[in-house]
Amino acid sequence: MTQAAGHIFIVGLGPGAPEQVTPQASAALAQATDLIGYAPYVARVGAGPEVVRHASDNRVELDRARHAIELALAGRTVAVVSGGDAGVFGMASAVFEAIDHGPAAWRGVDVTVIPGVSAVLAAAARLGAPLGGDFCVISLSDNLKPRAVVHRRLAAAAGAGLVIALYNPRSKARPDQLGEALDLLRTILPGNVPVAFARAIGRPDERVILTDIAHADPEQVDMSTLVLIGCPLTHVIDRADGGRWLYTSRRVEETCA
Amino acid sequence: MTQAAGHIFIVGLGPGAPEQVTPQASAALAQATDLIGYAPYVARVGAGPEVVRHASDNRVELDRARHAIELALAGRTVAVVSGGDAGVFGMASAVFEAIDHGPAAWRGVDVTVIPGVSAVLAAAARLGAPLGGDFCVISLSDNLKPRAVVHRRLAAAAGAGLVIALYNPRSKARPDQLGEALDLLRTILPGNVPVAFARAIGRPDERVILTDIAHADPEQVDMSTLVLIGCPLTHVIDRADGGRWLYTSRRVEETCA
Repeated sequence: MTQAAGHIFIVGLGPGAPEQVTPQASAALAQATDLIGYAPYVARVGAGPEVVRHASDNRVELDRARHAIELALAGRTVAVVSGGDAGVFGMASAVFEAIDHGPAAWRGVDVTVIPGVSAVLAAAARLGAPLGGDFCVISLSDNLKPRAVVHRRLAAAAGAGLVIALYNPRSKARPDQLGEALDLLRTILPGNVPVAFARAIGRPDERVILTDIAHADPEQVDMSTLVLIGCPLTHVIDRADGGRWLYTSRRVEETCA
Repeated sequence: MTQAAGHIFIVGLGPGAPEQVTPQASAALAQATDLIGYAPYVARVGAGPEVVRHASDNRVELDRARHAIELALAGRTVAVVSGGDAGVFGMASAVFEAIDHGPAAWRGVDVTVIPGVSAVLAAAARLGAPLGGDFCVISLSDNLKPRAVVHRRLAAAAGAGLVIALYNPRSKARPDQLGEALDLLRTILPGNVPVAFARAIGRPDERVILTDIAHADPEQVDMSTLVLIGCPLTHVIDRADGGRWLYTSRRVEETCA
């Protein structure tokens, strides 16, 4: 497929199930001459042998972004792929950061960002409606952010009554950080505030654990887990079939944070 | 279509463009015998004449939720529809609240929540990558929440360096609230922090305004607008074609909130 001028599509692939990829994302992927992204996401895209796959390791987002820009300026149609939504701790920010700090000519590249169903929305849907009130989305990773900033943000969010969704909660390099975060939140939130660990939602190895902030055990969490910390208005409903739903009341009283 | 046991699908229809409705959502809608929701969303669903449409006015979420539960327990397959993602200030929370406060039998109803591309994700994609860092999503409506709580949450989020997405920023009944919120945020954030008004993203009447917190004018905002307030790490890139992108740096320094 030959293109007069190149283009970058930054595409959110959704949480994992093919039926959660939007038709808009599928149409962009079908136009791509080149796929760029973290290897497991590139592998998720079905494409013919004529499509060039540039699969890379984790943590090289800026290199990947620069590569995509160079290919597009050379006339290729590049799909930069992320899991979930590319704008939420995915590749979108890296591409614009690369343009901002790159040669002036890079500001001429055509970019379209195609939103996707983010992991936090998929996890919330699986659990019920835990994001029914105000909420925040925070990455626990300290690769690009000091741990003190993470803690300041967690304390502010919990103190203000926001439900908290944590991305990148735990890795081999950071085994203790989630435990520290939970300890901090225990000083702010009542012990019975619901906590959910939603792992690999929409994928075959999906696993959901529902607990509370007093009992939440970081050992049950890995890098593929979305951690959801409720607020005092987050309730558990016992279903007739033995399962449970989680929802956050839309109604807030004056006495609440 | 006759069903042995009923079911509720709570379906996020995405921001408006048909190509942003997931195949999973379309499949659920295709099974529905009954559609329930705010009239403009029900009208968006293509369905045969045999499907019963229960379109209702705004602000009657709990009545709508109870109606859906009763229909499902009577054996119907009900799709409760919301724009964007039903879990983000949509119908999902109302359905679970109705179950929680309803007769015990209601806990036996089958419910599946199907996530969608939320308005905040669509607006962010249209703008670039303004959610590249940590962020929060807050409804400015004081229908169910005291205004003092809204202000406390805004102050906490801005003080902690979170990007803020505001839903329900303004209505005829609340013409002054967005101005009050912006005035509060001006006491916390530098005047050059970018602000975007993203109206009806993905629909024919889409309109995007990019400004900063010092100059943001509430008169340019209506109920269909998503207001996005950056943080000190949110940058504007001037494109070669005269347009602009917005992105938030993933990199946070120790000195930042």
